[in-house]
Amino acid sequence: MATHTPSWTEEKGTPTGALLYPHTKTYMIFGANTDVGKTVVSTVLCLATRRTPEVIDEVVYYLKPVSTGPATESDESYVRKYTNGIRTKTFYQWDKAVSPHIAARESTQRPPRDVEVLRQIICCAEQCDNARGSVGEKDEGWLFVETAGGVLSPGPSGTSQADMYRPLRMPVILVGDSKMGGISTTISAFESLRIRGYDVSVVVLVDFHPEYQNADYLKEYFTKYSVPVHTLPPPPSSDREDFEEKVQAYYEEIRETPDSWYELKRILRNAHLHRTQRLLTMRPGALKRLWYPFTQHGTLVQKNIMVIDSALGDHFQTVVLEEPGKTDDDDRYPRDVMPEDRSRGVMQSFFDGSASWWTQGLGHGNSYLALEAAYASGRYGHVIFPEAIHEPALKLAEALMAKINNPRVSRVFFSDNGSTGVEVALKMALHAVRARFRLPTDTKLWILGLRDSYHGDTMGAMDCSMPSAFNQQIEWYTPRGVWLDYPKVFCRRGRWFISIPPSIKAHSTAEFTRGPFPDLDTLFGIAAKRATHDEDKTLYETYIARILFESQKKGIHFGALMLEPVVLGANGMHLVDPLFQRTLVEHIRNFPHLVFPAGPSRETPHSTWSGLPVIFDEVFTGMFRLGRVTASSFLDVHPDISVHAKLLTGGLLPLCVTLASESIFNAFSGNQKTDALLHGHSYTAHPIGCHVANVSLERMWQMYEGGEWNWAIWTGKFGKATRQNSWSFWPRDFVHSLSQLIVVAEVWALGCVLAVHLSGPAGYTSAQAYRFQVALRSRDKDKDWNIHTRPLGNVLYIMTSLTTTHETMTLVAERLLDVLTS
Amino acid sequence: MATHTPSWTEEKGTPTGALLYPHTKTYMIFGANTDVGKTVVSTVLCLATRRTPEVIDEVVYYLKPVSTGPATESDESYVRKYTNGIRTKTFYQWDKAVSPHIAARESTQRPPRDVEVLRQIICCAEQCDNARGSVGEKDEGWLFVETAGGVLSPGPSGTSQADMYRPLRMPVILVGDSKMGGISTTISAFESLRIRGYDVSVVVLVDFHPEYQNADYLKEYFTKYSVPVHTLPPPPSSDREDFEEKVQAYYEEIRETPDSWYELKRILRNAHLHRTQRLLTMRPGALKRLWYPFTQHGTLVQKNIMVIDSALGDHFQTVVLEEPGKTDDDDRYPRDVMPEDRSRGVMQSFFDGSASWWTQGLGHGNSYLALEAAYASGRYGHVIFPEAIHEPALKLAEALMAKINNPRVSRVFFSDNGSTGVEVALKMALHAVRARFRLPTDTKLWILGLRDSYHGDTMGAMDCSMPSAFNQQIEWYTPRGVWLDYPKVFCRRGRWFISIPPSIKAHSTAEFTRGPFPDLDTLFGIAAKRATHDEDKTLYETYIARILFESQKKGIHFGALMLEPVVLGANGMHLVDPLFQRTLVEHIRNFPHLVFPAGPSRETPHSTWSGLPVIFDEVFTGMFRLGRVTASSFLDVHPDISVHAKLLTGGLLPLCVTLASESIFNAFSGNQKTDALLHGHSYTAHPIGCHVANVSLERMWQMYEGGEWNWAIWTGKFGKATRQNSWSFWPRDFVHSLSQLIVVAEVWALGCVLAVHLSGPAGYTSAQAYRFQVALRSRDKDKDWNIHTRPLGNVLYIMTSLTTTHETMTLVAERLLDVLTS
Repeated sequence: MATHTPSWTEEKGTPTGALLYPHTKTYMIFGANTDVGKTVVSTVLCLATRRTPEVIDEVVYYLKPVSTGPATESDESYVRKYTNGIRTKTFYQWDKAVSPHIAARESTQRPPRDVEVLRQIICCAEQCDNARGSVGEKDEGWLFVETAGGVLSPGPSGTSQADMYRPLRMPVILVGDSKMGGISTTISAFESLRIRGYDVSVVVLVDFHPEYQNADYLKEYFTKYSVPVHTLPPPPSSDREDFEEKVQAYYEEIRETPDSWYELKRILRNAHLHRTQRLLTMRPGALKRLWYPFTQHGTLVQKNIMVIDSALGDHFQTVVLEEPGKTDDDDRYPRDVMPEDRSRGVMQSFFDGSASWWTQGLGHGNSYLALEAAYASGRYGHVIFPEAIHEPALKLAEALMAKINNPRVSRVFFSDNGSTGVEVALKMALHAVRARFRLPTDTKLWILGLRDSYHGDTMGAMDCSMPSAFNQQIEWYTPRGVWLDYPKVFCRRGRWFISIPPSIKAHSTAEFTRGPFPDLDTLFGIAAKRATHDEDKTLYETYIARILFESQKKGIHFGALMLEPVVLGANGMHLVDPLFQRTLVEHIRNFPHLVFPAGPSRETPHSTWSGLPVIFDEVFTGMFRLGRVTASSFLDVHPDISVHAKLLTGGLLPLCVTLASESIFNAFSGNQKTDALLHGHSYTAHPIGCHVANVSLERMWQMYEGGEWNWAIWTGKFGKATRQNSWSFWPRDFVHSLSQLIVVAEVWALGCVLAVHLSGPAGYTSAQAYRFQVALRSRDKDKDWNIHTRPLGNVLYIMTSLTTTHETMTLVAERLLDVLTS
Repeated sequence: MATHTPSWTEEKGTPTGALLYPHTKTYMIFGANTDVGKTVVSTVLCLATRRTPEVIDEVVYYLKPVSTGPATESDESYVRKYTNGIRTKTFYQWDKAVSPHIAARESTQRPPRDVEVLRQIICCAEQCDNARGSVGEKDEGWLFVETAGGVLSPGPSGTSQADMYRPLRMPVILVGDSKMGGISTTISAFESLRIRGYDVSVVVLVDFHPEYQNADYLKEYFTKYSVPVHTLPPPPSSDREDFEEKVQAYYEEIRETPDSWYELKRILRNAHLHRTQRLLTMRPGALKRLWYPFTQHGTLVQKNIMVIDSALGDHFQTVVLEEPGKTDDDDRYPRDVMPEDRSRGVMQSFFDGSASWWTQGLGHGNSYLALEAAYASGRYGHVIFPEAIHEPALKLAEALMAKINNPRVSRVFFSDNGSTGVEVALKMALHAVRARFRLPTDTKLWILGLRDSYHGDTMGAMDCSMPSAFNQQIEWYTPRGVWLDYPKVFCRRGRWFISIPPSIKAHSTAEFTRGPFPDLDTLFGIAAKRATHDEDKTLYETYIARILFESQKKGIHFGALMLEPVVLGANGMHLVDPLFQRTLVEHIRNFPHLVFPAGPSRETPHSTWSGLPVIFDEVFTGMFRLGRVTASSFLDVHPDISVHAKLLTGGLLPLCVTLASESIFNAFSGNQKTDALLHGHSYTAHPIGCHVANVSLERMWQMYEGGEWNWAIWTGKFGKATRQNSWSFWPRDFVHSLSQLIVVAEVWALGCVLAVHLSGPAGYTSAQAYRFQVALRSRDKDKDWNIHTRPLGNVLYIMTSLTTTHETMTLVAERLLDVLTS
């Protein structure tokens, strides 16, 4: 029995996505419990679509995807009986009156997969919407989907129905419970739906038990959610003799009493109208009110703004509604909002190719993370942190120590994002250096770093990077560093190389290339010690020593070595030879006099830094983004300070930690408060962030330890190969194929990341990737989903989450190859 | 009928807080629905505490706080009948078998208030814990509290029980539902509890309907929450003739089958043990692993670390467990962890006097915000923002425009916290100035600001403040500004004054004092134009002109005027004469040539800045912290750029917005991407933050418009006086009394904030406030709660949330007066 959250991507050819049509209103009918009157509500809704008892005014479909119990007493047959002329359908019917997951399991046939159920609903919805035009005046359509049991009752696969149907994210009619205890079950059911991102349009109560006055309570309760509560009189009970006639009379009575259904219909129509009209105005609203990060508004056109209605797993649900020539001012639903040939509704599914700008790990709309976020909110809200402690923060600190397993670090400092975390690291390192060497306060301390590194957008973080397109226009930007050239790693024509710039190979002007290597593991020296290891190490050491010597001659004092391990992200997605970074760190540590002539000799205890405090900015590279909990493990050296953010919360909300060694920590210890690290943010270690980080870290660790990514390993045959090998969601053969293309200069893949460096002008200002970005996002009727990317100049990168499946990867890879070769 | 969340502070003498005893295990028994076997589980639990049928091994109390239905058939009588010798109690019994809120309403007696119910539970818990010692060997105590109906079934007042009992935050035994649909109701009930911050220790299923196999499903489902699922066989049904004997036999059978109950008892004992042992180790854990913001670890002692177990409304629940001489290594519960005379348990309630470091607005553990946070998480997770739009972000942008109502601003830029938002503001302003005056890129642009202003801890924000204790030790700190002296406002000996420093009154060396004013409104010129208005304006203008002239002579180019309106927060909690700040803004705008000699003349359209872009840092002062949506409204001028954070999300999680005018925005428009504002954070406009901000802003606005703070108005008799008046949660008479004290130099209060400037050495490094901080937090057995504060040097400030009640304020004020006079 599976209780997992279904994925859009369980197999090839997944459904289009969420259901939304301009003229067909689709609603899902959930019950607060079983036996609360869902089918009565369905019947009333279907009847409400008639002008007279005989004339059906609108196109109406009733679906019961999954049904258990005798077919002759099924909900579908009930609805059909009392609503002559409505199209009805049951997809799966099991005779045994038990939960669908048991009935399906005990059946001789394979239980339907979640995605199969969804696809049939979409198919019916399209039929329903198409039927509108063909029946004369019927330009309004209604689709009602009645679920089985309560909101979290399992579907055939065992997935709870609220989770199983979530990809469609249809607005909900929640049928409340009028029984004793029904207030509780109704509100709880509402909460379970809300945790899963559903919008409940109305609560309908079939008032079997008016004596409990549940309706009064619920009406007041739902006011704060602006959810109306509508009541219906109870139908006759089934133990009466003239049951069928009485029921017939009940529905006739209801139909003749417009108050019973007219208001309900109005609520549903208005909710739909409100939603579609709002979606229409979001693009112009955004263009008018927002100031986007890293966006040139002068060239931003309205149609390129992606309206995200919701997201799930790897996918956004976006809106392709286009503005009509004019909007109708009357109270009718919007007309002519899309070309007639769009039969699939107005939602378009997009693979989130930037892993939501590098944060995403455990999937969008993850209801487990949602509930855990709520738990921490409900238990604490936010509580002050200095000189206080709460379980989520302490647990996270301890878990990070255990999992990151860096013997040098022992302390956790919390902040809100990578950039602030880098500033914290900077303050720590500079102060530690000044304290050790008793430097006067006006000594200028510089950063030693790599060309193309980037550490964030706040001023202090910016100053750690060398001048580039990102910072040259910033008024207060003051470069404070010396930045080394570095050897790049890439795949070209199916083979892997290291490119050593001329500055490193000082006596040659030509670029110097190492390789080819058959794969990354060999190059990294993981699978086997790479042949050129010693030779390159010497080359690198010579270069590093020269730069340090020249810096010393210029009177430069360094305050920290700051690196993004293995991958330089924001500033161009470059893969660095780990041997170079490792050599750099070791050289600084082994020869402290190269940094500070008067400095102490090499120190041995793990917690004590030597030469310079080494800061690793793992904001992008860490937390399994590159396949390992830290990217520094590729280097096989430990930093004195490391910064972690983005994936830390599984991709849900901002949180950052800066880890530091005891020796750095002690540099701030004293009697004076002003000697302390006077840095902090109001929401420091907010419980909601820490708790979500804890459960995310646990989940990621489980996946890692449990070998869930083993399919993605490129080489090696180890049981837990993710520990020993480099691996990637991107198949090796695919990467090698890409590297053969004319438009591709070079390419690399590691963990979740694929970086395609295109031929032609390089750099952030390059527009090389633009046409491929457009091709990938273009709506294609043959594709269930397209791909959203956010290139960096000439680099078209695509990043998966940690839960992306092999099947999805195959589709993404196929599509990318297709676009790059067309 | 009230469905509100109960407050601890509904009346004087509120309960101590959450229930926790080292040796007495307290559990609350909730049901997934009514009629699922809660009382059966209670009975089994009570029986499980016996060594033999006759000997009760432990002290056991069973409580049914609220009961409906005939007393003779009550749950209490059932438990008593089958568990001879257990202490049982029902607090409220109504004969009618309906929900307690209806029974209570229909009764002739006043329904009990939530806090009355809670107090009786606490009283019984204390009796139970005290009874342990007195009964020989019985050193283990158990308290079981059985709720009525389902988890959200209303209590007598109408508050849902999960909300009503939340202040006690007892660990939960959730009795699941074995019926058809019971999987759904059980999981939903669990989710509702979790949203409210409860820990569920075990799910117990009385398996009335094994044919539905709910137990199998639930066992697997709850694995991911590490919640065990325990099943019990069903008791005989009540329609059998020999019912009572059969039931007796059922319980005997259970007692003689240790498997039925032993495992359950073990689970509960271990959960308790785990919790208390963990609480014991949190202080040393924190001391070992954390690096606190703004904290000198060299002087931090373990016992001063506040262990926060949970929080609700205005209060933390903290742990007073002290470490024993040694911890027991065996599997017994911890012994000797607290002095014997602590009869009230190990939890101590603290009024959160720093409003959780200035963020708190709508109360801790707010279940409404928790659910809304979950909704956004479940609908989106986080989604990329540049060139995309989602409902929470757009709605927030539009709501901010409508509510902040600054005709100058039109654009919203999102970031993560106040400091990053200030850096964004800075980049905006500096670039706009450089663009307008076509300054070369290497022109140094300075900030014009006020002495004692503070804008955050990232480097760019730090550089906007003049040197102080906060930044002087920071290696890269580079002051880039000219900072004006300013006139301070305060209350001394019951009257209000403005103190004008000698620098402003240039031809006098003595400090110059205006006043006394009877109240702040008169001083602010709100109630009536203040008498000295014109005179002071001239004085201020002269001073400002002089500083600008001197700066010009020095060749200083300004890039922005940056102010914290009305209150300078972090750097000393100073109240500024709004007339001075207003004059400063107007002067810059009216005489742009004073800033840039070559600058254009005064410009009129709202969106166009004149002189300098004016940045208001409303991070602390805005969002009703000082009683109004913006503090700039006290100045009656509008900024060109404003920064808002902290209270923006009601106090739940980090989010920041920088609002800017169209003219500033346009300075970045062009064809080149590098001309754009190249600043952004990965979690920019994260849906969870934006959505929580939306619902928080709506709620705060409702309170404001609805006059919920009218009781706190000091002067004036307007209907919606909060619009026109200054007001404060701190009673005027109380503030005036404080100002008479010898230890108090001066004091002020506005909105939520009370700032007591103590006599003696001033500044951040002063320890003047320390002894009062200690006195306020000292555990006092006569007090239901103490007060946690975080002074700023010699300034003892206390800050309320926006939901703090009049009753709580009275108690806080009394206590403060008491401490300051003792």
